[in-house]
Amino acid sequence: MGEPAGIGGEITLKAWRRKKFGAPSFFVIDDCHRLEAIAQALALDVPIHKIETADEAVGVFAEALPVIDHPVAEIPRPGEPLPANAKSVLQSIKRAVELVRRGDASAVVTNPIHKLSLYDAGFDHPGHTEYLAVLSNSESTPVMMLACDQLKTVLVSIHVGLRQAIDSLTTEAIVKNGTIAAKALVRDFGIREPRLAVAGLNPHAGENGAMGSEEMKIITPAVAKLREVGIEATGPYSPDAMFSPRLRGAYDAAVCMYHDQALIPIKTLDFDGAVNVTLGLSLIRTSPDHGTAFDIAGSGQASEASLVAAIRLAAAMAKQRAAP
Amino acid sequence: MGEPAGIGGEITLKAWRRKKFGAPSFFVIDDCHRLEAIAQALALDVPIHKIETADEAVGVFAEALPVIDHPVAEIPRPGEPLPANAKSVLQSIKRAVELVRRGDASAVVTNPIHKLSLYDAGFDHPGHTEYLAVLSNSESTPVMMLACDQLKTVLVSIHVGLRQAIDSLTTEAIVKNGTIAAKALVRDFGIREPRLAVAGLNPHAGENGAMGSEEMKIITPAVAKLREVGIEATGPYSPDAMFSPRLRGAYDAAVCMYHDQALIPIKTLDFDGAVNVTLGLSLIRTSPDHGTAFDIAGSGQASEASLVAAIRLAAAMAKQRAAP
Repeated sequence: MGEPAGIGGEITLKAWRRKKFGAPSFFVIDDCHRLEAIAQALALDVPIHKIETADEAVGVFAEALPVIDHPVAEIPRPGEPLPANAKSVLQSIKRAVELVRRGDASAVVTNPIHKLSLYDAGFDHPGHTEYLAVLSNSESTPVMMLACDQLKTVLVSIHVGLRQAIDSLTTEAIVKNGTIAAKALVRDFGIREPRLAVAGLNPHAGENGAMGSEEMKIITPAVAKLREVGIEATGPYSPDAMFSPRLRGAYDAAVCMYHDQALIPIKTLDFDGAVNVTLGLSLIRTSPDHGTAFDIAGSGQASEASLVAAIRLAAAMAKQRAAP
Repeated sequence: MGEPAGIGGEITLKAWRRKKFGAPSFFVIDDCHRLEAIAQALALDVPIHKIETADEAVGVFAEALPVIDHPVAEIPRPGEPLPANAKSVLQSIKRAVELVRRGDASAVVTNPIHKLSLYDAGFDHPGHTEYLAVLSNSESTPVMMLACDQLKTVLVSIHVGLRQAIDSLTTEAIVKNGTIAAKALVRDFGIREPRLAVAGLNPHAGENGAMGSEEMKIITPAVAKLREVGIEATGPYSPDAMFSPRLRGAYDAAVCMYHDQALIPIKTLDFDGAVNVTLGLSLIRTSPDHGTAFDIAGSGQASEASLVAAIRLAAAMAKQRAAP
């Protein structure tokens, strides 16, 4: 469901309309009345079909959007999240995880949530991803990957200020995240020997210490350790050059030292089609690469492209993971 | 000329061959024997025509590459710079500036130099650009702009480590660089009321202080000061979103807080066609957006695309500046 005052409902309905163009079958955990109201308000011709169990979804999907009814306390006005709905939002995530853990669904795709509304309701995780890690009893810390057709990037640090990202950069964090990424590329993307390109932190990757020493002290040792455990890691590379058309074809994922180093190239290339993938969870989870977009919620302008890409990628990963 | 052990000679010869495709006429300050040797070694059919004064260049250009002979001490082997040539390299820059200041040429386009070789010879400027600022008696500190067809970015800090870039970020520096950029966009690019998009430093531009305070303390006040003096500046914007196809059409230049924030989007979009432009000098100066490339020097693999783009842009800027 995601935040019910955001664009989640609208893009979900629009994603179903793309079924003719090969979107895999999916079902939704959401408030049926809410979705019907959105379909009506935006004149989206999407029949809603309430299902009781996940099994029913496949039979329904061709004719209607299958929905496991999950009521909200009150249907909010677009762009105006209601504290009363926080519990329902969190429960919808929980139900999704349970369905995957029981084998009733093959992956979780999450619509954007609005963290501030959840904090007010006592939510005490840094974000969606960390909550999912707890719910799914995952052993390792989750690792964020951004993926578009031309490029995959993996983040060593995520939502912290740039100065803190530098302060907290360690060889161990790079090795840990690189290892989780390499395993996921084998297991969920079917790449037998993933090639990781590790980014530098500084301009020109520090130019032998002339512009920063983190490459020599922290990153180069991490590349060496990854190679020691048999991972095909190389670098550190000059961050400005490694995402160029010629170089990005030479690796399967770039290991990035901070949020914007990973997100700028992805969003420069493909703002609408980029997908956020959480690696290192026991289950498969993707999400669209945007927020709740309160500013355009209810207007009918929201693009379903990233959600469709997230559903597609989740399905492909599940198929790969299930392959013998 | 640039560093004679680098790819400068090769790409200059190749750029002349593009003359049929509309490259503007240019002449070179370089060692005639050296260029002839490169043309022969790489089987590039480019006749070299020695000229004594800039005036002769236009008449020569259609049939041969016009060269003001500027001997090196010794022709180096590709990839192996010779300290003995440092003086000649520096003199070639000086001669170029003099020709423009006398009105014999309309702009300087510099081939890449190898700073380390020049430092050994007593060169005491941080780089090419700073040397040009001194030679041309420019009043303001030069500002680096990267330009490709889809995007222009301006840098507040250039070749310093990322931590130092954060430490040295000030409201004054952003205002100064933004002001120089706005003036140059009017004078040399013919944009009457340039729109500057000022980037944040932190993920999501700090999200109201949740991920870094530089936006609130330093950047937002800079945007306000730029607007006070009548510059159409907005921001700070979330750095990961502002270079996306939809947003980059809404401004004329992005003012970036650090080297890779400006260079990653440019090189992700257009590695070969990006041009380095120095704003704030009394003369027009562009250069290709790559280094000496010692690793491929002499092999014939070097692409002239960025040099051609640099020549084209310098010519367009000169035409704009000369317009009534």
